[in-house]
Parts: sequence; C-alpha cells; structure tokens
Amino acid sequence: MTELRIFGVEGIGEIRPGDDLASAIRSAVSAQGERLVDRDVVVVTHKVVSKQEGRLAEIVDERAYRRLVMDESTAIVRRRGDLVIAKTRHGFICANAAVDRSNVSPGWAVLLPIDPDRSAHRLRTQIEHATGASIAVVITDTFGRPWRRGLVDVAIGVSGLPSVLDLRGTTDTHGNVLEVTEVAIIDEIAAAADLVMGKATAIPAAVVRGIDAVGDGRATDLVRPPEEDLFR
Amino acid sequence: MTELRIFGVEGIGEIRPGDDLASAIRSAVSAQGERLVDRDVVVVTHKVVSKQEGRLAEIVDERAYRRLVMDESTAIVRRRGDLVIAKTRHGFICANAAVDRSNVSPGWAVLLPIDPDRSAHRLRTQIEHATGASIAVVITDTFGRPWRRGLVDVAIGVSGLPSVLDLRGTTDTHGNVLEVTEVAIIDEIAAAADLVMGKATAIPAAVVRGIDAVGDGRATDLVRPPEEDLFR
Repeated sequence: MTELRIFGVEGIGEIRPGDDLASAIRSAVSAQGERLVDRDVVVVTHKVVSKQEGRLAEIVDERAYRRLVMDESTAIVRRRGDLVIAKTRHGFICANAAVDRSNVSPGWAVLLPIDPDRSAHRLRTQIEHATGASIAVVITDTFGRPWRRGLVDVAIGVSGLPSVLDLRGTTDTHGNVLEVTEVAIIDEIAAAADLVMGKATAIPAAVVRGIDAVGDGRATDLVRPPEEDLFR
Repeated sequence: MTELRIFGVEGIGEIRPGDDLASAIRSAVSAQGERLVDRDVVVVTHKVVSKQEGRLAEIVDERAYRRLVMDESTAIVRRRGDLVIAKTRHGFICANAAVDRSNVSPGWAVLLPIDPDRSAHRLRTQIEHATGASIAVVITDTFGRPWRRGLVDVAIGVSGLPSVLDLRGTTDTHGNVLEVTEVAIIDEIAAAADLVMGKATAIPAAVVRGIDAVGDGRATDLVRPPEEDLFR
C-alpha cells in the first residue's frame, strides 16, 4: 500500500540570526519521541530559515514597507491598490515580493532567503551529518494563485528531491501516452505539510515520510521561463 | 502531535457508467485491511466519478477533440498553438477545459462532472450510509498554473469540509494580525493525496486521516470572481 505519514514538529521555539536551526529541528523531533530516518522529507517554512540567516528588515512605517517590497522585486507583474504582484530575484511571482510581517516581531518583516535552494542544501547536510539519515529538505512559502481563491504553500527551496516528476512517455493502464507529464511534486509536498503546520500556531516544520521519488532538483526549476508563460 | 496519515486505495478497477463507485471504494479499502472512520477524507480523482456518471465522449479525430474543448468552455482565457486555457461552466480555468484523453479507452475523452460538488455530496452520502462513519469527500483534477512549471492536483468538488480556512482576525504568536488569511485547505488536501495516487498507476482514490477542519463548503467557492482577479 502506498502510504504517507506527515507530522508537525512542535516546540522549535523562536529562531534568531545565527541559531543552529538543524539542531533545533532535531531536538524538537526527539522531544516528540520521533527520530528522522532515511528518505524523510523535512519541510520548513522559510520564516525560520530567513530568521536564522538574518533576512529581516526593520520597518518604521508603511512607506518603508512599500520601499522594501520594491527593493525585493525585479519586476512588477500587476498592481491594484496596496496589492503588488511582484517577481522576486529568484523568479518567483507572488504578493508583495514575499515581504511578510506575520510571525515576526512587530515593526519587522521577514524576507526570502537569498538562495533558498542553497539554504535547503545546507540544512539537509547539517541534519544528515548529525543523524546519519539520508533525508531531503523542502523550504516553503505561502502563495496566492490567479483564478483560485485562497492560498497554498509551495516550495521555494529544495535539496534531495526532484522538483518535478517527469512522466513524459509514460503510458497509463489503457496504453495511452499520458497528457499530464510533469507533476510539481515538491509543491504537492509543501501543500501536504502545511496541513499540519498551520499559520497562526508555532509549528514551522513537518516531516513527510513515505515519498519514494529520487533525484536532486532545485525549486527555481519550477520558475516558468517567460517565453513559456502566457500570463505575464 | 498534529499528524496525518494518507494511503492510496488500490484495486478499484475500471469504473463504467452506472457502476456503484461508493461500493467499489469501500470494498477496495476493506481489501487493504482498512476501514473508513469518522473524519476521514476520501479523495477521488474526477476521472472515476465522470466515468460513473457517463461523462465520456467519443473522439473520432483531432478536430472532434477541439470541438469538444470548445463545447466544454464558456470562455477562452489564452490560446497558443494547440494549447487552450479555457474557463469551464463551473468557472474553473484550466488547459483544454479539462477534456482529457488519458486513463480512458483510446478514442475517448473524459469530461468534468456536471456538478462536482453535488457528485461529492452524493458519494459522501452513499459511503456514510454504508459505513456509518461521518466522512468528507474531495474530487480532484490536475491543473497547470501560471508562472510555475509542473502540475498539481486541486479540488473541483467537495462535501463535508470547508473550502478555505478563514483565519481573518487571527493573531500569530507575536500578536500580529495574520496577513495570510484564507488557506485553500481542499486544494492542499488534493495535492497531498496526489502524492500517493500517481498519474500512470491505477490508484484513483486515497484516504486522508487527521484533518480536523469543520464546515461544509463548495469547490466552486474557490473560483475567484472576475472583479477580484488580476489575471484574466
């Protein structure tokens, strides 16, 4: 039977610049009576990664916030009133260039990591070194979507997993060549993990157990090249 | 500890118009040594629901396929070469108005159910009647997204769950009012279930256990009204 188990990692506590995030995650997993094993996917909201990396900015007023959004943007895709849909330097397109004032001290904002794939790789290496388990790491953020209400978590960084499952040339049980060819598996993992993480509660990480995909992609692989994109 | 368990339901077999899908799902769950319990979410790909409802069309050639896509569309949002991004009568915006030639006999296409929320409600009622368990049902399809490569499963029908978790007015652990206010929980459930369902294999359903959301929404609640949408 194909089966997944997903559990939230509670009690990580507030992360400050320079803290040992890998240790904090391992300790919190242990405190729950669990341990990380081979093929576990550790999913972490970018908030704690950004805090650990010092990607924080003080915001004195609304104007400073707006300026920060512009600093974090390489292009403005749409604008309506206070809402700016911007492209970040990574190529991600999201509200306010992902500058976020929740889950941080009032008067501060959290920015995206400079290179979230690299952050994921570093965290993975540290956890693997300490546990001996061969794991993967996915770093997430919460994005809106055109056309559909509500937000979902997506992957902005990954290490130890392919970003897409490429099914090109695969046939279904009827012998048809599949029309659906590329599944964004790390986005589906990010969404799945969010179901146990929550937005208001202090659960910034989760473990997804049972994923059998093999490969090593980057979350920036998911950025659709502008020439393929009908919606810029 | 917040925890989910997700398992695929194998051995449902090919579904034909008029078949008892609820029984087929229950039998397949039993054959795996499992049983449905209160608060389980049964996630089903729309393919088997559409087949059960006879939402199939014979396609003699490419031109017939194109005509069918037009018949299933209420608006064309973008077009490039063979790719048509269309709005369906439900308001969903997706490739080729969700007319799909995979996982069906060659020469045929599967259409979306006429009213997927109603289909979900019917399936839920039948399963609840037979099992005595109070469950939810999510019906899924696989959609592309602007800006991000790869496809993810989303909810096109639901019964027994809210479509979004409304966190408006909620504060985080720092006392900030949350900026992220509406989580599309049924889309996250659809994405999570796809991780065990697969596209090429015969696993058209999954059970998600551990969701504690309460409410009764519709998947069409997720259709963003045009006046709120910056990307038409």
